[in-house]
Amino acid sequence: METHSRVTLADVRDAAARIAAHAQVTPLLRSRSLDELSGAQLFFKCEQLQRAGAFKFRGACNAVWSLDEDSARRGVVTHSSGNHGAALALAAATRGIPAHVVVPEGAVRAKLAAIERNGATLHHCAPSIAAREQTAERVRAETGASLVHPYADPRVIAGQGTAGLELLQQSGGLDALIAPVGGGGLVSGCAIAVRGIDPAVAVYAAEPEGAPDAYESFRRGERFTDITPNTIADGLRGTIGAINFTLMRENVREVLPVSEAEIVAAMRLVWERLKQVIEPSSATVLAAILRHREHFAGRRVGVVLSGGNVDLDALPWLGA
Amino acid sequence: METHSRVTLADVRDAAARIAAHAQVTPLLRSRSLDELSGAQLFFKCEQLQRAGAFKFRGACNAVWSLDEDSARRGVVTHSSGNHGAALALAAATRGIPAHVVVPEGAVRAKLAAIERNGATLHHCAPSIAAREQTAERVRAETGASLVHPYADPRVIAGQGTAGLELLQQSGGLDALIAPVGGGGLVSGCAIAVRGIDPAVAVYAAEPEGAPDAYESFRRGERFTDITPNTIADGLRGTIGAINFTLMRENVREVLPVSEAEIVAAMRLVWERLKQVIEPSSATVLAAILRHREHFAGRRVGVVLSGGNVDLDALPWLGA
Repeated sequence: METHSRVTLADVRDAAARIAAHAQVTPLLRSRSLDELSGAQLFFKCEQLQRAGAFKFRGACNAVWSLDEDSARRGVVTHSSGNHGAALALAAATRGIPAHVVVPEGAVRAKLAAIERNGATLHHCAPSIAAREQTAERVRAETGASLVHPYADPRVIAGQGTAGLELLQQSGGLDALIAPVGGGGLVSGCAIAVRGIDPAVAVYAAEPEGAPDAYESFRRGERFTDITPNTIADGLRGTIGAINFTLMRENVREVLPVSEAEIVAAMRLVWERLKQVIEPSSATVLAAILRHREHFAGRRVGVVLSGGNVDLDALPWLGA
Repeated sequence: METHSRVTLADVRDAAARIAAHAQVTPLLRSRSLDELSGAQLFFKCEQLQRAGAFKFRGACNAVWSLDEDSARRGVVTHSSGNHGAALALAAATRGIPAHVVVPEGAVRAKLAAIERNGATLHHCAPSIAAREQTAERVRAETGASLVHPYADPRVIAGQGTAGLELLQQSGGLDALIAPVGGGGLVSGCAIAVRGIDPAVAVYAAEPEGAPDAYESFRRGERFTDITPNTIADGLRGTIGAINFTLMRENVREVLPVSEAEIVAAMRLVWERLKQVIEPSSATVLAAILRHREHFAGRRVGVVLSGGNVDLDALPWLGA
């Protein structure tokens, strides 16, 4: 199997050119107080300011604009607990093609509203991975739409990698980069981009202890997805994809676990010090930097804040 | 009296040079969805990302670095419900001189913590303007510190104006600009800067209906401060200064009132769509744009978000 060779720096550069007319070049923010707290120089890549509020728009947009005319006309379909669905809906809108999004019961309300605002058709299903995949397959068969998987798709991985490409360029050089890992699209894409340019950059993945599939896969040396995710980081409940694991093994040094309490504390710190509304998934990276200081202290660290689609009526530090 | 001639574009440019080594050039953000909602092109100047979390650092820093060596050594003193206090404390720290901050009982906890974090000495007093001024005067007499008023000070006004200077440069041209008005330092400074460069820019002030001193002053044609402020926008409870009113009359077209409900709704919109943590005072500007559409629709509008120091445990849309 040649899956390891299926996404390269050249693919990421192609994706950057393909999405340039549609995606935001998101800003890089710094914070003196978070630098002091971490002992590192942190460069926060603000994907919560990406269109549709998360990095997911990059991959979705690259997939949509990679389709040939015939396929594009029949639209796209995906299953997603939220951000990828909203992103695909918006990406489809930039090309004027239909989008179908399969959403599990229990998804965050604010994220469903965003999907509908972007003009997609919602298809509800039970909150199991099997139900999602069956429903998506049924929609695909009925409409002829192309499936755009949230992460296990080379076009999506290359698109997500453009965040890392921009981060490295904007920062003026990095010693390390950290991104959250759910299915592994973001961190594998960013790792390929950044290490393709500078192989000395150490790339880390931050993962909730409540959804430790990537951690366990790294520990065992083989992909392991037999977990029941239990974490506030709703964007990271998916399990690591096969292609993603292959690419991560080549490019990611370590998966760093963080607790739920550490995620909530880091989320609050970003709101308070960086003044950025980020969702719990985004907070895993600062949580990991503060817990696993030995990898980051004294270094220039690119920190990917992955998204900002949070329910403002239910903030985790305010209790039920 | 020549108070109207006491702050000019040249003063703002001098201030910009004086504070350049210390203050942030804050980013300008855009939002497609807020543009659609308002029917205008909005350029958000992100002073919540200024050091100490508000535009106040600009004026404080200009005042501190305007002092001669002898005066500087004896430090600075002010009375402030929060942001100016924190800003002056930090500005004093950049010059290594003492800062004394008189704070009224009932000030926002997060703001007091920020003042102390920045190394100032706190002096508590009753929550009346008389008590604040008496306490500040006592501290001044005892220490020889220079008083830096939160807004009725030409050095402070020129410093705040640097936000408008940057905004105009970053935006590539504006038809209008809107900033909140409390004491009037920010909006008068920005108006002088922006209209000094392009007299065609229409400048508006946004003010809570619960603290209508600037609105009443404009309506009556003379400074009017006999109000009892009752607004969630804690940064705008001060009454308009004499020099500020004079400068506003020359440079500000209109004071636009907004209700408490409009402030809270606009604050939530900025959090949700722009992903920026702003305090209620900052939300008055978007509230005014949405309520007084006739001044803004179809135009390029500079929008000064003044600060982001909010108590994350007490969000106004979540009730008590």
